[in-house]
Amino acid sequence: MRISDSFSSSFTAAAVTSIFSEESGLQSMLDFEAALAAAEMQEQVIPAGSAEAIAMCCRMELFDRKALAEAAALAGNLAIPMVKQLTALVRAQDAKAAGYVHWGATSQDAIDTGLVLQLRDALIVMEGQMSAVCDVLAGLTEQYRTTPMAGRTWLQQAVPVTFGLKVAGWLDTMLRHRERLSELKLRVLVVQFGGAAGTLASLGARGTDVSRALAEELGLRLPDVPWHSHRDRVAEVATFCGLLVGTMGKVARDLALMMQTEVGEVLEQAAEGRGGSSTMPHKRNPVAVAEILAVAVRVPGLVSTMLSAMVQEHERGLGGWHAEWAVLPEILKLTSDALEKMLDVLAELEVHADAMDENLDVTKGLVMAEAVSMALAVSMGRSEAHGLVEAASHRAIAERRHLLAVLQEDAVVVQHLGAEQLERLFDPLGYTGTAQAMIDRVLSSYAMVKKYGQVAR
Amino acid sequence: MRISDSFSSSFTAAAVTSIFSEESGLQSMLDFEAALAAAEMQEQVIPAGSAEAIAMCCRMELFDRKALAEAAALAGNLAIPMVKQLTALVRAQDAKAAGYVHWGATSQDAIDTGLVLQLRDALIVMEGQMSAVCDVLAGLTEQYRTTPMAGRTWLQQAVPVTFGLKVAGWLDTMLRHRERLSELKLRVLVVQFGGAAGTLASLGARGTDVSRALAEELGLRLPDVPWHSHRDRVAEVATFCGLLVGTMGKVARDLALMMQTEVGEVLEQAAEGRGGSSTMPHKRNPVAVAEILAVAVRVPGLVSTMLSAMVQEHERGLGGWHAEWAVLPEILKLTSDALEKMLDVLAELEVHADAMDENLDVTKGLVMAEAVSMALAVSMGRSEAHGLVEAASHRAIAERRHLLAVLQEDAVVVQHLGAEQLERLFDPLGYTGTAQAMIDRVLSSYAMVKKYGQVAR
Amino acid sequence: MRISDSFSSSFTAAAVTSIFSEESGLQSMLDFEAALAAAEMQEQVIPAGSAEAIAMCCRMELFDRKALAEAAALAGNLAIPMVKQLTALVRAQDAKAAGYVHWGATSQDAIDTGLVLQLRDALIVMEGQMSAVCDVLAGLTEQYRTTPMAGRTWLQQAVPVTFGLKVAGWLDTMLRHRERLSELKLRVLVVQFGGAAGTLASLGARGTDVSRALAEELGLRLPDVPWHSHRDRVAEVATFCGLLVGTMGKVARDLALMMQTEVGEVLEQAAEGRGGSSTMPHKRNPVAVAEILAVAVRVPGLVSTMLSAMVQEHERGLGGWHAEWAVLPEILKLTSDALEKMLDVLAELEVHADAMDENLDVTKGLVMAEAVSMALAVSMGRSEAHGLVEAASHRAIAERRHLLAVLQEDAVVVQHLGAEQLERLFDPLGYTGTAQAMIDRVLSSYAMVKKYGQVAR
Amino acid sequence: MRISDSFSSSFTAAAVTSIFSEESGLQSMLDFEAALAAAEMQEQVIPAGSAEAIAMCCRMELFDRKALAEAAALAGNLAIPMVKQLTALVRAQDAKAAGYVHWGATSQDAIDTGLVLQLRDALIVMEGQMSAVCDVLAGLTEQYRTTPMAGRTWLQQAVPVTFGLKVAGWLDTMLRHRERLSELKLRVLVVQFGGAAGTLASLGARGTDVSRALAEELGLRLPDVPWHSHRDRVAEVATFCGLLVGTMGKVARDLALMMQTEVGEVLEQAAEGRGGSSTMPHKRNPVAVAEILAVAVRVPGLVSTMLSAMVQEHERGLGGWHAEWAVLPEILKLTSDALEKMLDVLAELEVHADAMDENLDVTKGLVMAEAVSMALAVSMGRSEAHGLVEAASHRAIAERRHLLAVLQEDAVVVQHLGAEQLERLFDPLGYTGTAQAMIDRVLSSYAMVKKYGQVAR
Repeated sequence: MRISDSFSSSFTAAAVTSIFSEESGLQSMLDFEAALAAAEMQEQVIPAGSAEAIAMCCRMELFDRKALAEAAALAGNLAIPMVKQLTALVRAQDAKAAGYVHWGATSQDAIDTGLVLQLRDALIVMEGQMSAVCDVLAGLTEQYRTTPMAGRTWLQQAVPVTFGLKVAGWLDTMLRHRERLSELKLRVLVVQFGGAAGTLASLGARGTDVSRALAEELGLRLPDVPWHSHRDRVAEVATFCGLLVGTMGKVARDLALMMQTEVGEVLEQAAEGRGGSSTMPHKRNPVAVAEILAVAVRVPGLVSTMLSAMVQEHERGLGGWHAEWAVLPEILKLTSDALEKMLDVLAELEVHADAMDENLDVTKGLVMAEAVSMALAVSMGRSEAHGLVEAASHRAIAERRHLLAVLQEDAVVVQHLGAEQLERLFDPLGYTGTAQAMIDRVLSSYAMVKKYGQVAR
Repeated sequence: MRISDSFSSSFTAAAVTSIFSEESGLQSMLDFEAALAAAEMQEQVIPAGSAEAIAMCCRMELFDRKALAEAAALAGNLAIPMVKQLTALVRAQDAKAAGYVHWGATSQDAIDTGLVLQLRDALIVMEGQMSAVCDVLAGLTEQYRTTPMAGRTWLQQAVPVTFGLKVAGWLDTMLRHRERLSELKLRVLVVQFGGAAGTLASLGARGTDVSRALAEELGLRLPDVPWHSHRDRVAEVATFCGLLVGTMGKVARDLALMMQTEVGEVLEQAAEGRGGSSTMPHKRNPVAVAEILAVAVRVPGLVSTMLSAMVQEHERGLGGWHAEWAVLPEILKLTSDALEKMLDVLAELEVHADAMDENLDVTKGLVMAEAVSMALAVSMGRSEAHGLVEAASHRAIAERRHLLAVLQEDAVVVQHLGAEQLERLFDPLGYTGTAQAMIDRVLSSYAMVKKYGQVAR
Repeated sequence: MRISDSFSSSFTAAAVTSIFSEESGLQSMLDFEAALAAAEMQEQVIPAGSAEAIAMCCRMELFDRKALAEAAALAGNLAIPMVKQLTALVRAQDAKAAGYVHWGATSQDAIDTGLVLQLRDALIVMEGQMSAVCDVLAGLTEQYRTTPMAGRTWLQQAVPVTFGLKVAGWLDTMLRHRERLSELKLRVLVVQFGGAAGTLASLGARGTDVSRALAEELGLRLPDVPWHSHRDRVAEVATFCGLLVGTMGKVARDLALMMQTEVGEVLEQAAEGRGGSSTMPHKRNPVAVAEILAVAVRVPGLVSTMLSAMVQEHERGLGGWHAEWAVLPEILKLTSDALEKMLDVLAELEVHADAMDENLDVTKGLVMAEAVSMALAVSMGRSEAHGLVEAASHRAIAERRHLLAVLQEDAVVVQHLGAEQLERLFDPLGYTGTAQAMIDRVLSSYAMVKKYGQVAR
Repeated sequence: MRISDSFSSSFTAAAVTSIFSEESGLQSMLDFEAALAAAEMQEQVIPAGSAEAIAMCCRMELFDRKALAEAAALAGNLAIPMVKQLTALVRAQDAKAAGYVHWGATSQDAIDTGLVLQLRDALIVMEGQMSAVCDVLAGLTEQYRTTPMAGRTWLQQAVPVTFGLKVAGWLDTMLRHRERLSELKLRVLVVQFGGAAGTLASLGARGTDVSRALAEELGLRLPDVPWHSHRDRVAEVATFCGLLVGTMGKVARDLALMMQTEVGEVLEQAAEGRGGSSTMPHKRNPVAVAEILAVAVRVPGLVSTMLSAMVQEHERGLGGWHAEWAVLPEILKLTSDALEKMLDVLAELEVHADAMDENLDVTKGLVMAEAVSMALAVSMGRSEAHGLVEAASHRAIAERRHLLAVLQEDAVVVQHLGAEQLERLFDPLGYTGTAQAMIDRVLSSYAMVKKYGQVAR
C-alpha cells in the first residue's frame, strides 16, 4: 500500500510536497524491498515465509530516521543504511528471513524504483491539477467567447480579439501538455532492477523471472535492460515540467500585463490580507501571478541541470546521479505549486469586460484601421483603400481626433461604405474573423480529452 | 518544392546546417507565401492566376539578400522586408497579383510556418542519423555480447559485465529517443496561420477554409487555433534534442574513460592528422568524443533558454520570440553534429578485448569476490560465506596477493567448492547473470523498431 | 600589430564581431607565435634572426584558411594545423628558423593566449560602449530629474517618482559594471604559456625567463602558474557579461512597459522601415528593445554553459575546453550588441512627459493617498490619519470619483490641512522625498568615474 | 546582536544552513527594523524611547512563526505580516512606539537589507572555509612538490608533472577566488532603504540623514540610490559562487579520475560506513568527491536563474524578485557544502606516490619520448632527433617493448647521449622544467594572501 493512497484524490501542491518528503521517499524504497521479497518468494528464490517477515518491517515508522540521515551522508546514499536498519528489524523477528533482505539488489535499484513510485503518485496529482485548470479555462473560453479586447503584439495594440479566444489559446496548449504526459508515463513508469552492475549476476539464471514478478508486484512495466546510468526517463519528466511551466509563465505574464493599473482588464480575487498594501489602498498586487512567474524563472535552469546530469559514468554515475536527487523533486514541487496558483487565479478571476472595451478605444479608432481598409478594398481596390486609410490615420494622430470622426468627413469613404456601415466597422467584435470557429475547435478537443483522455487524430 | 529535397537522402550534419542557412530560411518563408497564394486561389479568395504569378517569384535566388538583412535589422524581423521585395518582384510580372501577396497573413505566419518546414527537414535528417547510430550499436552489441569487461560504479570496478551489454544499454536509450521523435512530430509539424492577432480577421468568413487548404498544400496538420505566442511546440523540439544529447554525452563519457592511457579498452580510429601529437607519439586523442562532450556541455543551457523564452506576451512576444531565432537552429545543428561524430566514432571503434580482460585482473581477483561469496552461500549460508570471503579479501589486499591464491589455501573453501569450481568462479563471463537475456530483449526491440518504426507495447 | 588596432577607436558591436572573426582568431594566435619567437630570441633560446623570419610569416593573409579549417576538424583544434602551415611558410624563407617555430609551446598556449588578446580588444570596445551609455543616461537623469511619473511595484502604481530618478537607478548599476570590468581585467589579461603539460619542460631551465619576456612582449601579465585547465578567468568574463546583460534586460523591460499602447510614456525613435506595420498605422514596435530582451533571455543559459565547462580534466580538458570556443565569443558579441541597441534606444528616446503626468491620474488621486495620510499624521496622529484616508479612498473607488474631491468634502481634513495645502498635496513632484539628493549622489559618482576611471570609496 | 554571532568562528556548511534558516531570516529583518528605529530616533524623526521599545520586540522568539508563514503566502512576502506582528508586540508594551514601527520603510527594505545581513555572515563563513582549503592545498603543494606523476591532456598521458605542481594549480585558482570575494563585498554589503518606490517620500526631507544613520547602525555602506529592482549585487554573489564551484568541480573531477581502480593514485580516507560496499570489499567509493561534483552540476543552472531573474520591472519586480528568495540561499548552501567536502577530502587525502610512479611507466617509456628527443636535439638538431625518436617509439609500440630498451640498442643514440644520460632521461622528475619555480611563485602568493589578505600586484 503506497503512502500516497490517502491523498491520491486530493490534487494539490501539498500532496506533491508530501510525496517527496523524506518519509515518503523512505517508504517508497521500502515498498521496493517488500515487493522484491514477494517476487523472489513467488519465484522460489528465497524461502517461503521470508517475504511476509520482510514486508512486516517495511514500514517507515519503524525506522530511526535521524540515524539514517547521518549514515547516508557517510555512505553516499540512503539505501545502504536503510538496508542495514531493515535487516536488523527483520532479524529481530525472523533471523532467517533477515538473510534475504535486498536479495540480489543494489542500492540504486531501491533508490530508482522508489523514485519511480513517487513519480507515479506525483504525476497522478499533476494530471488532476491540469485537468482542473483545463476545466476552468474551458469555462472562461465559453463565457467570454464574444467579449472583445485588444489583441496585442510587441506590447502594442494590433487588432481586436476576444478574451475567450485568448483563453482558448491557453487551453489548447494545456491539452498538448496532457498528451505529452500520457506518452511519457509509458516510458517512465518502469522498474529499475539490475544488481551491482546491471547483470543481476547474484540471481544466477533467475534474474529475468524475478524481474518480471517484481514489475508485476509493483504495477510497473519491465524495461528491456536496467537503466541505472541512462537517465533519459527521469530527465524527460523534467523537460515535460519545463514545457508546462513555460506555458504557465506565458499565461501569468499575460495576466500580469492585463492587471496593470493602466490596463485593469482583470484582477486576482481580493481577500483579507491578500496582495494589499496598508498605505496604498488602490493597490491589488498580483500575488499568485508573481509566484507563477517566479516558478517560470526558476524551472528552466533546473531542467538544464537534469540534462547536464545525464552524462553519467559507466554503470553508475559520479555526481550526475546525486545531482538529480534534490533537483527532480524540486521541479515537480514547483510545477505543482504553479498549477495550484494558476487554478487559484483563474477560478476566481475578476474579468472587467468594460475595461477591455475602453482600452480598445485608447488608440481613438486606429486599432480598427485595418478593418476599414479591408472593407473599402472590396469596392475601391486594396492599394487605394490602404492609402486612404493610412492618410486618415495620420491625420487622426496629428489632430488627436478619433479615426471615425476623420473618416466621416471623407466623402469618398462615406460614399463607398455608407455612414451606417462605416460606424459598424468600428465595432471590434465585427472584426474578429474566425475566432468563434477556432474556439469551437478547441472546445471540441477539450471535450474529447475530457471524455476519452486524448484527442483523436 | 523544398530546397532541402536535394539532400533529403543524405543524413549529415552538413544537411542540417544547410537547412538552417539564411538561404534556406528565406526559401522556407517563400514556400509559405506560395502555398498561401495557392490555397487562397483555390478557395477563390484571390483571383485566378495570381497564385501562379506569386509562386513564380517565390524563389530565393531572385532576392537581394543583402538588402533584406539590412532591412530586417530595422524592421525587427525578416518577413516584413521579404514581403516587400516579393511584392515588388510580383508587380514587375503581374501588377494585379502583386496586390494579393501575403494576403491575410502576418509576419509571424511566414516566419513560424517557414520554421516548421525547416524543422520537418531537419528532423528527417536526424531520424536518419539516429537510425544509422542504432544500426552500428546493434552490430556492436551482437559482436561483443560475450566479451567480458569490468562493470564500474562510482568509477570503481564493481562486478563483470560484457561490452555487448554496455552497448545494449546505449542502444536501448536511443530507441526511446526515436519513439519520442515520432510522437513530437505529430504535435510540431503544423501550420501557423492567424493574421495580425490570430483571428484571421482580414479573411472575413473564409479563414477556416483557407487555413485548411494551406495546411493541405504544405502537407502539415492544421492546429485548432494559431499558436503564435504558445511556444511549447518548438520548445519541445529543443527538449527532445536535450535528452538525445544527454545520452550521447553519457556514451562519449564512457568512451573517453575507456580510452584513457591507463585503461586502453577502446580507441577512436587512427587517421593521418587525427588526434595525434607531433612530440608525443603514444598519444591518440579522442577528438570526436571531445566534440560530443562539448555538445553535451552546451545544449542544456540552450534548452533552458528555449524554456525561458516561452514566456511570451499576449499575441506576439517581445524578446522571447526573437531569442528562439538563433537558439533553436543552434540546438539542432549541435545535435546533428554530435550524432555524426557518434556514428563516426562507433562505426570505426577499435575495441581491445584483451585490455578489457587485463583490467578485470587489476584488483587481483577482488572484482570476483561477490561471485565466490554467492557460490559459497549455497552450501554454507549467506552470512558465513560473506564473512569468509571478506576476510580473505582483506588478506589479499594486505599481502598484495591474488584473491584466488588466498582462497586456494583455505581448506574450508576448497572443501565446499572443489578446486576446479573455485578457479572457474574467477571466470568473469561466468558471473554476468542475465546479461544475454537482456541483450536479446534489446536487440528484439531494435528489430521491431527497424521493421515497424516503433516498439509494440 | 593587432588586427583590431584599426577599429579600436570605434566602439561598436561590429568591432566585437570582427575581433571574434575566424581571421582575427587566427591572427591572434600568430601574434602569440611571433611574440614567442621574439622572447626566445631575446633570451638566446633560439638563434639570432629566427624571430624576424618567423614574425614575417605571422600574417593571417598568408594562410590557406580553408585547409586550416578542414585540418582543424580532424586534429581537434586549430593550433596544430596552424603551426604546420606556419612552419612551412617560414621554411620557404629560412629553413633554420623553421625549426624554432612554436618552440616549447603547446597548442593550448597559442589558443588561450590568442583568446586573451581577443578579449583585451573586445573589453576595450565594450568599455567604450558602456561609457557612451553612461553619458546618455547621465544626460537623461539631469534632463528629467524633476519630471514626475508613477513609481510602479508589482506592475501596480505605487507612489510618484521622477523619470530622472528612474534613469539614475539604471546609471548607478552601469557604474558598478564598469568597476567590475576594471577589476577583472587585472585577472584575465595574462599570458598562457606552459608547454605540453604546464611545466615548460622542453625549455629546460629557461622557462621562467622566456615566460617573462613573452608576457612583456605582449603587454600581458605573467601568472604564477599556467592556467590551461583552470578556467575561472575566462568564465569570469562570461559572468561579468551575464550581470551586465541582466541590467540591460531590466532597463529594456522598463522601456517596453512604458512603451505600451495604454501607457505611452516613451517611444523608440521613428524611422523609415523601423518597427512599423503597413496595415496598422498606429503601431510603433519597440524593435531595439525586443532585441535587448532577447539577449537577456539568451545570455544566462550561455553563462551557465561556461560555468559547467569549468570542470576540465587534469592538464587539458575533454569537452569543457572545446565548449568554450563558440560560447564565450557568442556571449561577448551578444553583450556588445545589446549595448549598441541600448545606446541607440536611449540616445534617441522620445519621452512623453505629458503621458507620464496623465498616467499619474489614472487612479484618480489614489496614488497620492500616502502623501495626504503622512501630511495629516503631523497634526492628527498617524493611525487616525491613516484610517481617515483609507475610508476616503474606498469611497472614491466605490463612487468612481477623484480622491481630492472626496477629501475636499471632508471638513476635518480641510480644517487640518487647509484647502490650498490639500490641493498641493496632489502635486506628485511634492511627494518625491529625497529623489533629488539621490540623483545628485549618482551624478557625482558618474562624474568621478568619468574623471578618474573609478569611484573613490 | 546578530543571530550568527554564536557560530561566526565556526566555518562550516551547517553555519551557512543556519544563517539561511527561516528563523535567521526573520531575525535579520528584525535587525533591520530595530536599526531603523534607532536611526530614526537618533535623527529625531521618531520620539525618544520608541527605538528601545521597538528593539525589545525585535527578537524572533517572540513571533508566531506558523501564523507568519501562512500570512506570507497570502500577502506575497514575509515582511508584511512580520511588520503586523511586530507592531502588535510593541503595542502591547508601548502603544505610542507602535506607531513608529517600520516608519518610512517598505517591505523590500526589510527583506533586502535582511538578506544583506545574512550574506555578510555567510560570506564570512565561506571566507574561513576557503582559507582552510588554501592552507591544506599549500601543505600538499609543499609536501608533494617533487613527487612525479603523469601530466594528462585529453585523458591521455602527456609528459610528467609533479603532484605538487598539480595542487599548486588548484591553489592558484582558489587565491583568485579570494580576491574576487574581497572585491564583491565592497559592492554587496550595502543597506537597502527606499520606501514605497525608492524616494523615501514618507520621510520628507529627512530621508538622507536617516539612511546614513541606518547604514552606520548596521555597519553597512550606504549606496547612492536604493537598488530595489537592480539586482546586480545579489546576482554577483551567485556568479562568484558559480566560479568557485566550477573550480571545485575541476578539482573533484581530477581526484575522481585519480581514484579510479585502474589508476589508484589517491583515495578518500577510509572510515567505518564510508563509501564501502558490503559485497565488494575492494571498493572505496569517492563519496565526498561525488557530492562536490553534484554541486558542480547543480550550481550553473541556479546561477543562470539568478541572471534571468535580474529582469525586474520598474520599482519592484514581479516574479524575478520572488525567484531569488529560494535560489540565492540554495547557491550559498551548496557552495559552502562543497567547500566543506573539499576540505574533508583534501585534509585526509591518501596519496599513493608509488602508484603515480607506476602509472608513469604504463606507456613503457613513451611518456618520456619528448625528453629524449629534446636532449638529442642539442647535438644532432631538432628535426633529426625527432625523426629518430619517433621511429624508436613506433618500434617500441609494435614490439610491445620499453622505449629505453629500444633506444639502448641504437648506436647513434648511445653515442650522442652516453648510456648513463640516456637512462637518466627516463627519470620523470628530470623532465619537469620550471615546475619548482612555478610552485615557489604560487606559495609566495599564498603567503602574501595569508599575511596581507591579498596579493600585491
